[in-house]
Amino acid sequence: MPDTAPNDWDARAETHSFYGFTDLPSVQARGTVVVTHGEGPYIFDTAGRRYLDANSGLWNMVAGFDHPGLAQAAKAQYDRLPGYHAFFGRMSDQTVMLSEKLIEVSPFARGKVFYTNSGSEANDTALKMLWFLARAEGQPERRKILTRWNGYHGVTVAAASMTGKAYNALFGLPLPGFIHLTCPHYWREGREGESEAEFTTRLAAELEEVIAREGAETIAGFFAEPVIGAGGVIPPSEGYFQAIQAVLKRHNIPLIADEVICGFGRTGEVWGCQTYGFTPDAIISSKALTAGYFPMGAVILGPDLSDRLQAAAEAVEEFPHGFTASGHPVGCAIALKAIDVILNEGLLDNVRALTPRFEAGLKRLAEHPHIGEWRGKGLMGALEAVADKPTKTPFPATLSVSERIANTCTDHGLICRPLGQSIVLCPPFIVTEAQMDEMFDKLEAALNRVFAEIGAG
Amino acid sequence: MPDTAPNDWDARAETHSFYGFTDLPSVQARGTVVVTHGEGPYIFDTAGRRYLDANSGLWNMVAGFDHPGLAQAAKAQYDRLPGYHAFFGRMSDQTVMLSEKLIEVSPFARGKVFYTNSGSEANDTALKMLWFLARAEGQPERRKILTRWNGYHGVTVAAASMTGKAYNALFGLPLPGFIHLTCPHYWREGREGESEAEFTTRLAAELEEVIAREGAETIAGFFAEPVIGAGGVIPPSEGYFQAIQAVLKRHNIPLIADEVICGFGRTGEVWGCQTYGFTPDAIISSKALTAGYFPMGAVILGPDLSDRLQAAAEAVEEFPHGFTASGHPVGCAIALKAIDVILNEGLLDNVRALTPRFEAGLKRLAEHPHIGEWRGKGLMGALEAVADKPTKTPFPATLSVSERIANTCTDHGLICRPLGQSIVLCPPFIVTEAQMDEMFDKLEAALNRVFAEIGAG
Repeated sequence: MPDTAPNDWDARAETHSFYGFTDLPSVQARGTVVVTHGEGPYIFDTAGRRYLDANSGLWNMVAGFDHPGLAQAAKAQYDRLPGYHAFFGRMSDQTVMLSEKLIEVSPFARGKVFYTNSGSEANDTALKMLWFLARAEGQPERRKILTRWNGYHGVTVAAASMTGKAYNALFGLPLPGFIHLTCPHYWREGREGESEAEFTTRLAAELEEVIAREGAETIAGFFAEPVIGAGGVIPPSEGYFQAIQAVLKRHNIPLIADEVICGFGRTGEVWGCQTYGFTPDAIISSKALTAGYFPMGAVILGPDLSDRLQAAAEAVEEFPHGFTASGHPVGCAIALKAIDVILNEGLLDNVRALTPRFEAGLKRLAEHPHIGEWRGKGLMGALEAVADKPTKTPFPATLSVSERIANTCTDHGLICRPLGQSIVLCPPFIVTEAQMDEMFDKLEAALNRVFAEIGAG
Repeated sequence: MPDTAPNDWDARAETHSFYGFTDLPSVQARGTVVVTHGEGPYIFDTAGRRYLDANSGLWNMVAGFDHPGLAQAAKAQYDRLPGYHAFFGRMSDQTVMLSEKLIEVSPFARGKVFYTNSGSEANDTALKMLWFLARAEGQPERRKILTRWNGYHGVTVAAASMTGKAYNALFGLPLPGFIHLTCPHYWREGREGESEAEFTTRLAAELEEVIAREGAETIAGFFAEPVIGAGGVIPPSEGYFQAIQAVLKRHNIPLIADEVICGFGRTGEVWGCQTYGFTPDAIISSKALTAGYFPMGAVILGPDLSDRLQAAAEAVEEFPHGFTASGHPVGCAIALKAIDVILNEGLLDNVRALTPRFEAGLKRLAEHPHIGEWRGKGLMGALEAVADKPTKTPFPATLSVSERIANTCTDHGLICRPLGQSIVLCPPFIVTEAQMDEMFDKLEAALNRVFAEIGAG
């Protein structure tokens, strides 16, 4: 570790970095946390402070920050073939093996894989695949994309257009033709007196109406996260995907499951779509796919889209798309190991074993008079702060309640994430019972302190 | 290496992979080359065949396929911190150090860096930065992007829209508002009797006309590779960037240099813009940045764009953009080592030392009656095949001349790239004189064989 005072690192970071997804007033007041190393679910900064990272990095470091098997897989591949592409009919043996493994563990009997470097690129690629297919099949007008408010699909111009967040207006996004439907969040979006089943039925009816209004023949696909992640950990309402998929099937609109966060165990099954009992037409994977040890995304095409895309590409002799590092051999070697670690070395078992303790902790904190709702699935959860519980009235945005809670947690060695007025928790799959208790104890102390500070204790 | 016959690997690859940027008839006829390991500039496949990779992978493996220092940098970081993000005011120490180094080696006196996972994402990000800035500065109509025909900027929906290649019509791209100007390729685009200086003047006048037609206040930026790379290795005509930049400055339109291929030594200087004597407003970097050992892209903002973007972000408290693996500590540790290897361990020196031999080899092959032009800069070059040299008439596309030349090279242990009717060469920076001679000898044999086969010998 370089022998430098924390303030030097702050200044060095801020002088040369343009920060993304960072509350700049917080950085100006508190400085930058410069991370040097990790141990299990903990990270350490240049000042020697230790933090329990209840975010798993960014949902992705599911095996913690020092998994020896994953590091070994990376090192072995760096000694063998440290880089190659997957263009021009060439690819590495690791790439071939990972594609086999991904189809094997997918919900599809057969299919094809296309690699990218991120979830954003994977969603962007899936969109280009649908546009390519539509033109090849004589339907060039089939271009609109349906997603949901609060759905998060990434940050490229196209992926940000799919994302249903108000901040994208700062870029003049979404582009035309990206249509956001109601978020399937019963607690927040349900109407007075409406049952959860009625809410789901209303959302399916809304989809039917949007398709009728726009014309089914103009819609290229519907992209959805099984559990909305970066939009605030929002599980779908009861029966949502069954109701939605029935409508989509009737109109021949493909359903793409964005499993960037849910995939590889987060919800307690390998895929979020398995947790919710539906089979999509394609899966977008990233994050836990390499346990955060390498940038990688994948589009996993089910049988129907595979066959149709292959035919469309053969008709023009080439699918003219791909990234330099698509199918990078080191990333593929790491992903092969990560899948093995998650499925066969106890990580998925631990997610299932600790889910009751996780839910019990969320429920306990939700008894607080200023926590309006707990929600979650598997090891992803959120607590939403409210000024008034019966009416679900939020705190004024100027109070920055969730940022204050998260900053207070950081001061006490716990990293959790403010999202809107919620606090999001998604600990790594290796978390122990004691570490989970530490997480909830520190969060509870922070909640009590912040609510007291703002006179809402 | 797994003990499997080559044909098994072929079938395994094709069953589970959806190929990008691959001539599918060639794969069907010849199978897939499944790569297992590398030595210097050579790669080996599952059948034990050895190939001299005159493509440096995909322009990126500039230190070859087994550089011990780069592998060691990766391994050391995997033992220290194998992953982290750069959101929420946190980032790794490696990220801080790389940003310092990038500004130090950039042409800018100061500036800021934003990380992505690829050149595509970096161009897409730069575009979003320009749109964000335009809205923040009260000019929401400033959205159009100028690029050139044959310019290649990547494959996201937005980066593909910037790219000036006809194949993007297969996706219904470019999006509206992406305007492609004439490629500055004097040999192909120059008019009868027009001098190179007159050609450059005409292209500057075209830019002036397009700005007048569209309205300067509607144009967000001009993106250009110093040497057009994947569009066929096309150096600019004499004085091009001076002429273009004068027009852009007059209209306050930023010039973004896409240095994904040129950056870090390919043209004989650190940056292509230094080779051509201009300073852009921002630089897009990728590929050689990590010598292909890790997926990484970077937007390097010069002083003016840095200051304006920082002010714009502070006004809304956050720049809501970023990728999960932006500033990944392993990628940053590798990039720090790659920059050191290129600048201080003789790689850039070797590019300069071998450029005369490279140019001599290209010139010699260009004496062939069916090579219309050699072109290049530093260690990037192209030979363009023509049916008739005086009139520059191309061969019929149905003959697939460049694919046949490249496939013949592959049969004899040399990988080079067909691009349109050209053959592209971009050997790694570690190439020796003997390896360069091997490259030209094998290519010459392939040219003679293929031109004889098609009766053009």
